[in-house]
Amino acid sequence: MRLTTLRTADGTRAARVEDDVAIELDAPDVGALLATEGWRDAAATGGTRHDLDSADLAPLVPRPGKIVCVGLNYRNHILEMGRELPTYPTLFAKFPEALIGPADPIALDPASQAVDWEAELAVVVGARVRRADDATAEAAIAGFSVLNDVTMRDWQYRSPQWLQGKTFEATTPFGPVLVTPDELPGGVRPRLAITGSVDGETVQQANTADLVFDPVALIRYVSEIVTLNPGDVIATGTPGGVGHARKPPRYLTDGAVLVTQIDGIGRLENRARSAAVVSG
Amino acid sequence: MRLTTLRTADGTRAARVEDDVAIELDAPDVGALLATEGWRDAAATGGTRHDLDSADLAPLVPRPGKIVCVGLNYRNHILEMGRELPTYPTLFAKFPEALIGPADPIALDPASQAVDWEAELAVVVGARVRRADDATAEAAIAGFSVLNDVTMRDWQYRSPQWLQGKTFEATTPFGPVLVTPDELPGGVRPRLAITGSVDGETVQQANTADLVFDPVALIRYVSEIVTLNPGDVIATGTPGGVGHARKPPRYLTDGAVLVTQIDGIGRLENRARSAAVVSG
Repeated sequence: MRLTTLRTADGTRAARVEDDVAIELDAPDVGALLATEGWRDAAATGGTRHDLDSADLAPLVPRPGKIVCVGLNYRNHILEMGRELPTYPTLFAKFPEALIGPADPIALDPASQAVDWEAELAVVVGARVRRADDATAEAAIAGFSVLNDVTMRDWQYRSPQWLQGKTFEATTPFGPVLVTPDELPGGVRPRLAITGSVDGETVQQANTADLVFDPVALIRYVSEIVTLNPGDVIATGTPGGVGHARKPPRYLTDGAVLVTQIDGIGRLENRARSAAVVSG
Repeated sequence: MRLTTLRTADGTRAARVEDDVAIELDAPDVGALLATEGWRDAAATGGTRHDLDSADLAPLVPRPGKIVCVGLNYRNHILEMGRELPTYPTLFAKFPEALIGPADPIALDPASQAVDWEAELAVVVGARVRRADDATAEAAIAGFSVLNDVTMRDWQYRSPQWLQGKTFEATTPFGPVLVTPDELPGGVRPRLAITGSVDGETVQQANTADLVFDPVALIRYVSEIVTLNPGDVIATGTPGGVGHARKPPRYLTDGAVLVTQIDGIGRLENRARSAAVVSG
């Protein structure tokens, strides 16, 4: 099953995606749908149909209760940098105000001169879990989506904690759909090609099978700390190829088009625009 | 004006505090009250009266949209450690599930052997602000409260990012009241004695006038990154005297009583209890 969140004249609306059609459901967004008891049944019903190509899509979950992001988590990237594989995941947060839809502009803030990309697989939680074992963690995964953890590197490294570079308003595309694990090779530990490109040039390329801490392990780990709730999101980390690591570094500038794609899920296409333009 | 959030038989309820009485208001909690247009007028009305001493208090804002925490921010503590004053604040996040009421037990998780205290002044946001100047930032401060950023040091230092040690479920007392700036010496830049004690021994003692980044500066800084909304909370950092810095280190153990007090605002008194006891 594939789910999305539409923007309509009456606000956002959850929808099921079938081929090129989005079929409205009785929930304001995918987060609210997942918080419904028996959401899989609720998602099987349907109302007004929209052509998906011309639909205006919101962030998949517009207001997650928690967005937990994972640091360095791709095996090849860690090893190529000469580091040892970590014993524990590195976790940090992002606030919901950072999220944008899959075709929305990325707000380039004049306060940052170093806006970078981080293509990521996102895990969307579909059940309330605390101290999950493997089976519970697997069952708590509603599905997967695509997210780009766009980062202001100059702000990220102003202090030892990364939050301020990670949560600029309207910078993090998230969507276009949630795909349930049964539709993906590898299921709850999906094996999918992930790529990021800037102005048509591929800059990141990896496979989600290469995660050190896979989605099930991450649900287990985070739920050891705090309850995970339906609609919570875990961004699982990015592979090599970020602009900051290039020599010379490369960042997003006004007009640049960032494409983030995971085969079997979908594609984000976002143009970087100076914040003055976006807010105007 | 002083505000609090009561637990009643019908759920939580915002209240105004006058002397030893809490007077119910027409909002489910202080966060919802602050999100009301003209909340100062709404807060001046009143319904059922409760004896404050016997009231059961919830976290002041039970579900803030954002909890932004500040790292090293007390001047004397930074200088005594031989560090230079920072150019930028260090920011990290905490999730709402970490919050507990001002008399609730602190959940000692068996997964941590290093549960430490951090007495802090909390700023509660009362208006929507983005890229605030000084005047807008001052007007956006609804008031101040007390928070203890209880931290699992072993988890905090498992990775370069602190989040996982900062957001354990049911560990962060927050309350008992919000006090509006007009009632405090220093107003929006309050000058108040802050103390933390464990089992009656004072372990932290400072004055909130010693903050490197004061509440107005923090509202300005954070709102440069992201919109602040009513009910959002900024925990402004802790002075010296944490248990982890003691030789030998000292941590909270089952039964220990942590008292966190800011003169002119109020007092948190929380007993550390093993999580098994808390959830049982």
